[in-house]
Amino acid sequence: MTGYDECASLIEKKKIPFIERLRHAVEIKSVSNDPAARKEVCRMIDWTQKELEKLGTKCEQIKNGKQKLQNGEEIDLPPVLFGTLGNDKSKKTLLVYGHLDVQPADKSDGWNTDPFKLIEIDGKLYGRGSTDDKGPVMAWINAIEVMQELKMDIPINIKFVLEGMEESGSEGLDEILMKHKDSFLSDVDFTCISDNYWLGKTKPCITYGLRGICYYCVEVKVCKQDLHSGVFGGTVHDGMSDLCWILSQLTEVDGTIKINGLKEMVAPVTDEERALYEKIDFDINEYKNDIKVEKLTTEDKVKVLMNRWRFPSLSVHGVEGAFSGPGAKTVIPCKVKGKFSIRIVEGMEPEAVDKCVTDHLNNLWSQRKSPNHFSVHPLQGSLAWVADYNHPHYQAGAAAIRKVYGVEPDYTREGCSIPVTLTFQELTQKNVMLLPIGACDDMAHSQNEKINVSNYIEGTKVLAAYLMELGKL
Amino acid sequence: MTGYDECASLIEKKKIPFIERLRHAVEIKSVSNDPAARKEVCRMIDWTQKELEKLGTKCEQIKNGKQKLQNGEEIDLPPVLFGTLGNDKSKKTLLVYGHLDVQPADKSDGWNTDPFKLIEIDGKLYGRGSTDDKGPVMAWINAIEVMQELKMDIPINIKFVLEGMEESGSEGLDEILMKHKDSFLSDVDFTCISDNYWLGKTKPCITYGLRGICYYCVEVKVCKQDLHSGVFGGTVHDGMSDLCWILSQLTEVDGTIKINGLKEMVAPVTDEERALYEKIDFDINEYKNDIKVEKLTTEDKVKVLMNRWRFPSLSVHGVEGAFSGPGAKTVIPCKVKGKFSIRIVEGMEPEAVDKCVTDHLNNLWSQRKSPNHFSVHPLQGSLAWVADYNHPHYQAGAAAIRKVYGVEPDYTREGCSIPVTLTFQELTQKNVMLLPIGACDDMAHSQNEKINVSNYIEGTKVLAAYLMELGKL
Repeated sequence: MTGYDECASLIEKKKIPFIERLRHAVEIKSVSNDPAARKEVCRMIDWTQKELEKLGTKCEQIKNGKQKLQNGEEIDLPPVLFGTLGNDKSKKTLLVYGHLDVQPADKSDGWNTDPFKLIEIDGKLYGRGSTDDKGPVMAWINAIEVMQELKMDIPINIKFVLEGMEESGSEGLDEILMKHKDSFLSDVDFTCISDNYWLGKTKPCITYGLRGICYYCVEVKVCKQDLHSGVFGGTVHDGMSDLCWILSQLTEVDGTIKINGLKEMVAPVTDEERALYEKIDFDINEYKNDIKVEKLTTEDKVKVLMNRWRFPSLSVHGVEGAFSGPGAKTVIPCKVKGKFSIRIVEGMEPEAVDKCVTDHLNNLWSQRKSPNHFSVHPLQGSLAWVADYNHPHYQAGAAAIRKVYGVEPDYTREGCSIPVTLTFQELTQKNVMLLPIGACDDMAHSQNEKINVSNYIEGTKVLAAYLMELGKL
Repeated sequence: MTGYDECASLIEKKKIPFIERLRHAVEIKSVSNDPAARKEVCRMIDWTQKELEKLGTKCEQIKNGKQKLQNGEEIDLPPVLFGTLGNDKSKKTLLVYGHLDVQPADKSDGWNTDPFKLIEIDGKLYGRGSTDDKGPVMAWINAIEVMQELKMDIPINIKFVLEGMEESGSEGLDEILMKHKDSFLSDVDFTCISDNYWLGKTKPCITYGLRGICYYCVEVKVCKQDLHSGVFGGTVHDGMSDLCWILSQLTEVDGTIKINGLKEMVAPVTDEERALYEKIDFDINEYKNDIKVEKLTTEDKVKVLMNRWRFPSLSVHGVEGAFSGPGAKTVIPCKVKGKFSIRIVEGMEPEAVDKCVTDHLNNLWSQRKSPNHFSVHPLQGSLAWVADYNHPHYQAGAAAIRKVYGVEPDYTREGCSIPVTLTFQELTQKNVMLLPIGACDDMAHSQNEKINVSNYIEGTKVLAAYLMELGKL
C-alpha cells in the first residue's frame, strides 16, 4: 500500500511545478485594502477555484456584501470560496481555511525585488503573499494533488473556506459563515488553519492561542482644508501637535499601556502556563539579531514570549492626512487621523476595551484644551483565542510533524490575530488547530516577505501526513 | 500719447487670450518636489522662454547643478531662465522674479476639479499654480505684450529671473545668482516679486517683510525593516510613540514654542511698528470664516497679524515612513521621520536656530530613555527679510495701485518665506518690493488653489501702470 514515503518522494519530485503554482499566485496583486485592486482579489479567487476543481473539489463562490469606502462609495466585497472534496459519510470532515488576499507592497517601500514576482534567492522564495497566505494554501493543493496522483485514499472529507479580505479585517466573512452554520459547516469535525509561522527558523510548532486586536483611528480636525504654514502658521492650533500629544500618552517608553482598566482585564498567568513557556525553544539573541534591535522591552525569555502572546501590546501605526512623502512640504494639514491598535488577550472583550480606550482618549482630549475637533473611531475588534493542545486533533498534527521533521513540535501561541479561528471554533463547536508552515523570519506584512523552499516543500509533506493521521481518529 | 487708460482698456479686451495663456501654463505639471515630474518643470521653462521671446526678450537658460535624491541617485536640477528686455543705458533696470514650478496636487487630496486644468467657476480660475506663481508670471507677460501692441515706450529695461525649484527650497538658485552678481545682476536698480497675496480679498497691498524658515526632519529608527505588530508588538520599543512624544514637546497647545533660546532672538516690536499694524484693514472674523476655524491662538487683530508675520511659529507637517493610507494596517514602522518647520523672523539666524532646535531635541531624547536610534536633520534654512517701505520704489508701486484700484495700499508683511527676496537684496544692494496680485483666499499650497479673474486682469493693469511709474524715478 502506498504510504507516507511514496508521498514524500513525489512531493520532492514535483518541487518545480509546486513553485510555479506559487509563482502564479504571487503574481496576482490581490491587495485587499486597496479598492482599486479588488478585481485582482476576485481574479485570485477564480484562479484558486480552478486549481481546486482540478482536484475534483466542488466549488461555490458565496456572494459577499458591500464595502463602504471612506469617500462614501460602495463596492462589492470579494466572494468567499467554499469547496467540498469528498462526501463519504463514513469519514470525518476537516475544514481547511486560508486567505488569498495580501498586504499592500511596493518596491519603493524597500523591497529588494518586485514584490509581485516570486524570486528565488538562496533557497528562499521572495514575494508578497509567499508565506502569508498563498504559500500555505498552495501547499494544501500540492498535498492533495500528490495523494491523488498516487491513487491514495484521502481518509477524510475536506471542506475549504478561502477568503479575500483577511488583511482587511475579513469583512463579511463572519456573516457568511454564520449563515452556513447549519449547512456547509454542520458536519465539520476539525478545523486546520495554516496562516501563522514557526516560533523560530528550524523547529516546527503547533499553535493553540492567538491575541485579538482592537484597532483605532483618532481624528483631529483643524479647519476646512490644508493651510500654508507660512501664511497661517501661528494663528491656528496645530492639529499634528494635538494628535502627536494624544498618541504619545498611550504607553510608557517600555511599551506598558497607560490606559486605565485594561491591565485588570487580563486573565492571570497560571504556574502550569509559566512552566509551558519555560520549555519552549526560543533564542532571544537570534530574535534580536533577526530584526536588528539592540534592546527589547525585556530580556527574559518567558517575559519576551508572554509580551508577544500573553499580554496586550499597543502599536502606533501612522498618520493619515498629514504630509507623508519625502522632502519638505510646508503644510498645516486640515485633518489628521492617527492609527493605533491594541493586541488583546484572554479576559479582554473588545467592547470593554473600546470603552476604556475611548474614555482615556476623551479624558486626554479634555485635558488638552485645544479648540480643534476630536473624535475616536474604533475600526475593528476581535477576541483572543485559546484552544486545548492536548486534544487528539493536535496529536494528529504533532504526529505528522514527527514524521516529516523527526522532532516533537513546540506548542506555541501567536501574538497576531486571525479572527476567523474563533469564528470556526464557535460555529462548529469543534477543535481548531493552527499548523504553521513558514518560518519566523518570513516577514509577513513587511518588505521582502518570503517562504523558504524547504518550508514550502516540507510543509506540503506535513499536510499530506496530517491528512493520513486524521484517518486514524 | 498713449497712456494708462488705453493700456487698461486693451487689457480688458484681451481677457480671453490672457486666461488661455494661464490655462496653458497650469496644464504643465511642473511639480518640483517630484523627481518624476522634472521633465515637466523643464517643459514649463521652455514654454515660458518662448512666450518671453515673442516679446523680444533675449533669453538664456542657466544650467543648474545636480539634485541628490534620498535614494542616493542624482538628477539634474531644472535650469534657471534669465531674460533681458531692453538695454537702454539711459533707462533704469527692473529685475522681475517669478517661479514656474508648483506644489504637488492630486484630485484625491480633496480638489473639486482636476488640479492641472484651469477651470473657471464664478469668476475664479481654479488650478495648481493659478496664483502661485504662474498667474503673476503670466500677468507680467500680458502687461508687456499690451504695452508693445500699443507701441508704448517701456520706460525701463526689464530683466527676468524665472526658476523651477521655488517650492523645493530654490535649490541651486542662490549659487547661480551669486555667480551673476557682477554680470547679469550688476545694473539692476529695483527688484519686483509677485509671489505673495493680498492680506484680504478686496484691498490691494504692498509687502515689505517676510518670515524665514528652518525645516527639520527628526528620525527614529527601531529596526531594519517594518514589523507585523501582532508578531512583534510588545517586544520592541515603538518608534512612532517615541516620535509622537518628541513632536508633542515642541509647542504649547496655543502654539507657543517651547524651544529654549528662540524667544530671546526675536527683535523687539517698536511702538512705530505697532502703530502701523493697528492701521491695517484686517477682519479677524472673515479670516476665521474663510478657513472655518472657530478659535484662533489669539483674537486680537494686532496679535493675529504679528503671529502671522512678526513672531516665529512652529508647524508639524507630517510623518514619513509610517502607515499613511486609509484603513487599518497593522505595521510597526521600522524608521519614521517627523517633519516640522519654524517660521523665523528678524533677529533669528538659521544656524543659531538649528543649534537651539537640535539641542532641545537631543535633550528631549536623552530624557526619553528609548533604545531606538534618534537623529535630527535640518533640511533647509532661510533668513527673514524686511525692506524700507518709504523707498521711492514702493511709492511707484503704490501709485500704480492707486491708478488701478483708486485706494492707498496697505503695507503688509507675509508669514511665509521667499528666500530669493533676501538674495536679490544682498546681491543688488538695491530695494526689493513684493507686489502681490492674488487674494488672501487663493489657497496656494492647498486644495482648490485659484486666482480671481479680476485679480489676474487688474493685476496685469497694476504691472503695466507700475512699469510706467518706474519711468518717473
